[in-house]
Amino acid sequence: MQALIERIQAEAVYLGRGIIKVDGFINHQIDPTLTMGMGQAFAEAFSAAGVVGITKVVTAEVSGIAPAFATAHVLGVPLVYARKHRPVTMANGVFTAEAPSRTKGGIVQLMISPEYLGLADRVLLIDDFLAKGHTIEALARLIAASGAVLCGIGCVVEKVFETGRELLTPLQVPIISLARVDVRDEQIVVA
Amino acid sequence: MQALIERIQAEAVYLGRGIIKVDGFINHQIDPTLTMGMGQAFAEAFSAAGVVGITKVVTAEVSGIAPAFATAHVLGVPLVYARKHRPVTMANGVFTAEAPSRTKGGIVQLMISPEYLGLADRVLLIDDFLAKGHTIEALARLIAASGAVLCGIGCVVEKVFETGRELLTPLQVPIISLARVDVRDEQIVVA
Repeated sequence: MQALIERIQAEAVYLGRGIIKVDGFINHQIDPTLTMGMGQAFAEAFSAAGVVGITKVVTAEVSGIAPAFATAHVLGVPLVYARKHRPVTMANGVFTAEAPSRTKGGIVQLMISPEYLGLADRVLLIDDFLAKGHTIEALARLIAASGAVLCGIGCVVEKVFETGRELLTPLQVPIISLARVDVRDEQIVVA
Repeated sequence: MQALIERIQAEAVYLGRGIIKVDGFINHQIDPTLTMGMGQAFAEAFSAAGVVGITKVVTAEVSGIAPAFATAHVLGVPLVYARKHRPVTMANGVFTAEAPSRTKGGIVQLMISPEYLGLADRVLLIDDFLAKGHTIEALARLIAASGAVLCGIGCVVEKVFETGRELLTPLQVPIISLARVDVRDEQIVVA
């Protein structure tokens, strides 16, 4: 996605230890026009990959919400975001899966209520980053637990120097990233 | 906002102790069409209230993000969402404010980086609920600390049986809610 790649080249900052800062347009401040373009790009790429009949988009709070919302808007389907902290409105008996979190440290528990995901659903999984793939893999387990069918995985930024794609390949669904980045000589380069 | 009111009447559930569950279309599952309508409704209502020249929409993670994104999209300005957990990409020296959280329990610390909010900004503050108003009041303190000007406050659902509007009135900006709900005989009624 050209507009995203240009934004990464102009604004992304490499903080060392594999960490890429894109707080200016993804993780803290969001550019709605760019983000709606991400939704359009995901919809077109999955359609081209033969992924059809999607009924739900699933992501995890927090930074996945905006690009997943844009994708759900373009596809005309609801978005379900897995919670990491159980709100008082969430009943017991929810689907849960654990994932290690590097950006937060420790283990994160992801929760989705069976009220909003089930046997009849065909799901597109969207997240901001594909790094080691642990969060997306945990979301895929939640989707499987619900009986829904995972049809595709989309990530805004894929770190090609991490092992995420390898971890997700056994899921046997198209994995689409809108920008693939590498780090060379402590600099971010588009792969 | 008629479509929102109808959705509340059809799906919102009263859980007791003032807690209203709208997980099916706001807090866990999101209806993108309804949410984009919220953005349009906020933009029109603030324009009618004479609020112009907005440069940023501000909200707090998590549930504020979708309606705030929709509003920012309609206005064509960036969205900044206050973080409750410091990501590794966030530098020191951020604006912080504390707010008590009833849905999570305890105190929540809200953070916004000075990179994305400052003297030149005219801000619309958008959140999902106006209940006691503590989160919105804390966000208003963050905005004031940055030197930006708060121009209006928008909330998707206002609980008229709580004291939020009273707490925010001294801020002397238009406060717009898209649906006002009350509880009578343990039932949700649109006020």
